[in-house]
Amino acid sequence: MIDQKLAAWGRSGNIIREIAEYGAEQAKIVGADHVYNFTIGSPSIDPPACVFETMDRLRATVPAWELHTYAPAAGLPDVREKAAAYLTRSFGVPYRKQDIIITCGTSTCLVVMTKVLLSAGGRAMTFTPYFMDYKYYAESVGSTLTECPTVPDTFQLDLDAAERALTPDTMMLILNSPNNPSGVVYSRETLEGMAALLRKKSAEYGHPIYIVCDEPYRELVYDGGEVPYVPAIYNNTVICYSWSKSLSLPGERIGYFCVPPCVDDSENVYKAIQGAMRVLGHVCAPTMMQKVAAKCVGIKPDLTVYEQNRKTLYEALTSYGYRCIKPQGAFYMLIQSPNGDDNEFSEMAKLKNLLIVPGTGFGCPGFLRLSTCVDLAMVQRSLPAFKALIEECK
Amino acid sequence: MIDQKLAAWGRSGNIIREIAEYGAEQAKIVGADHVYNFTIGSPSIDPPACVFETMDRLRATVPAWELHTYAPAAGLPDVREKAAAYLTRSFGVPYRKQDIIITCGTSTCLVVMTKVLLSAGGRAMTFTPYFMDYKYYAESVGSTLTECPTVPDTFQLDLDAAERALTPDTMMLILNSPNNPSGVVYSRETLEGMAALLRKKSAEYGHPIYIVCDEPYRELVYDGGEVPYVPAIYNNTVICYSWSKSLSLPGERIGYFCVPPCVDDSENVYKAIQGAMRVLGHVCAPTMMQKVAAKCVGIKPDLTVYEQNRKTLYEALTSYGYRCIKPQGAFYMLIQSPNGDDNEFSEMAKLKNLLIVPGTGFGCPGFLRLSTCVDLAMVQRSLPAFKALIEECK
Repeated sequence: MIDQKLAAWGRSGNIIREIAEYGAEQAKIVGADHVYNFTIGSPSIDPPACVFETMDRLRATVPAWELHTYAPAAGLPDVREKAAAYLTRSFGVPYRKQDIIITCGTSTCLVVMTKVLLSAGGRAMTFTPYFMDYKYYAESVGSTLTECPTVPDTFQLDLDAAERALTPDTMMLILNSPNNPSGVVYSRETLEGMAALLRKKSAEYGHPIYIVCDEPYRELVYDGGEVPYVPAIYNNTVICYSWSKSLSLPGERIGYFCVPPCVDDSENVYKAIQGAMRVLGHVCAPTMMQKVAAKCVGIKPDLTVYEQNRKTLYEALTSYGYRCIKPQGAFYMLIQSPNGDDNEFSEMAKLKNLLIVPGTGFGCPGFLRLSTCVDLAMVQRSLPAFKALIEECK
Repeated sequence: MIDQKLAAWGRSGNIIREIAEYGAEQAKIVGADHVYNFTIGSPSIDPPACVFETMDRLRATVPAWELHTYAPAAGLPDVREKAAAYLTRSFGVPYRKQDIIITCGTSTCLVVMTKVLLSAGGRAMTFTPYFMDYKYYAESVGSTLTECPTVPDTFQLDLDAAERALTPDTMMLILNSPNNPSGVVYSRETLEGMAALLRKKSAEYGHPIYIVCDEPYRELVYDGGEVPYVPAIYNNTVICYSWSKSLSLPGERIGYFCVPPCVDDSENVYKAIQGAMRVLGHVCAPTMMQKVAAKCVGIKPDLTVYEQNRKTLYEALTSYGYRCIKPQGAFYMLIQSPNGDDNEFSEMAKLKNLLIVPGTGFGCPGFLRLSTCVDLAMVQRSLPAFKALIEECK
């Protein structure tokens, strides 16, 4: 009488973590300097000084029991207010404290939205490539995730494919831009087209279709590029944000929902989010980090290291003959498998202690993902291995 | 198409938080010194020095990005190992690192176990009084929670009632001892009786019945009392532990599962826990606090303040004529409503800015819960209000 579907998910493992663990074992044998680990998407730069300054000030000024006590389930008023004010300042939207719910990061947000919108029979859709766990979230509430392809070469939204993929039970479209794993930022033009399509289909189906934006990489964008603000293009959008990447705090589990009144049936959605969080055992997001986030809400990450890695890898790999998708944001780069088979190429790379993740798990076979949130010296040491590998495929 | 059950849970509110918020508003009007808040069960003493010493040492010795990076989903190896070693040292059980899964506290554990054991048609049981959210956890996976009464006066397990309450689809018994809200510690004798009953019923039903121990209050016990270690009495027990109360870190969300091999079908249970955590969006427990817990795992809380409050309240309230259940552990005390109606009495108390929680929500009508994790000076200031209230009921 144990849920076997859960046991199967527990067994299925996580390909990213498995390759990373292989790397850790190899490092013991060949030495850490001879392992080139491009697997985990975790910031390689320190959190900004504001994080530590705030922690120190809190320690000095707030009684210790109070600094670490329960926060309200929806978050401390101060951080909700500061997050709303930041969005208002940045995007000209009239948000208020009560539109924000603090969570343990975007994973919590996505699981909650899946439960809220799909438990009663709805279905989710997303564009490939995408973060693999979206699918499990949908399946765990008895629903499914429809994978819609993007345009080959550009990885931008394919509106014709989207029109074919939408069905009368589609309740939510998950958008992740800047995208993991492609590094692509969805353009304003395709987002406007997508919004028009969703408005048409919502009217046709007689129920709203929600966009759920998974945007932990919002501030990670290169070459002065624009990350269009989706709620300004499509009212019926719920934002899922995390400070994991912008403040380099992925282990501290801190992010938020934004559900403003322009979201369809917003009062019901908001209450269902709170109900879902309760039955998911969400007591509160970590209290001290909420107070830290309140002070550091608008701090931009220093992208110097990620920029250098991106440039170094893109230039070297294209010069060796790899086809690379030049990242516009986030800290990943997709490369096409020189032999056409991403799983096989990942295995070949492992033999050279070069650890890169097959795209198959992201709905993107034939490609591999490189995390560029790594040490530049490691990037430089890894280049001969990349060069040797493509030569083996010729 | 929004899940209306979730919206209803979101709307239903939390009586404890509502009364506490009323108190915060009243404090603005009458002054904080004239509000006597016995609602929230959150440590009122500072975390032990070890917590801050460890944070300082980590800051000085671990690169900042690494200190705040993702931990493995099951927890950092060090904290898992230390938690297992502590249990082994304390209870003579041969636990290993791989028997421990780090979580964001016992709420996460209970939600996960509910999903693992009840999703496939099982049912849960617990003894009254109990923490109110257990019921929502069961209902959110389409199951139910059977409330079994305890023995009047002692609040110990009622084995006859338990035999009547068990059904062929009972898969889990949730035990919480020291108990919230009664402060009672279930005796070794009744636990042994319960274990025998469950062994008999497991054989009769042809499937295991799991005990799930919710034990954040394990170390909070008075007068040198014993908290029997349930897995030593009934093999098929999963422990859900939290450092929230012992280290005064309830806002930091850090605890663990213990699932040793003697648990029935342990490999499946363990994998199903991991699968459930994945689909619930549990990426990891907060990384820095995992490292803190690893160093502070065996530190006992200083119970001086809770002891003083318990003694002061028990002696004063019984002298006024209240019937009180003398707490053996945790930091709560139940009092019987002098007018027989706990909701009404709570409202009467609010008029005197005395904030106590009706027992109805804990499956314990006719009683009220006082949190004794408060400031002793406030306890003393509150006594005239308690005295006046019972006189009004005479």
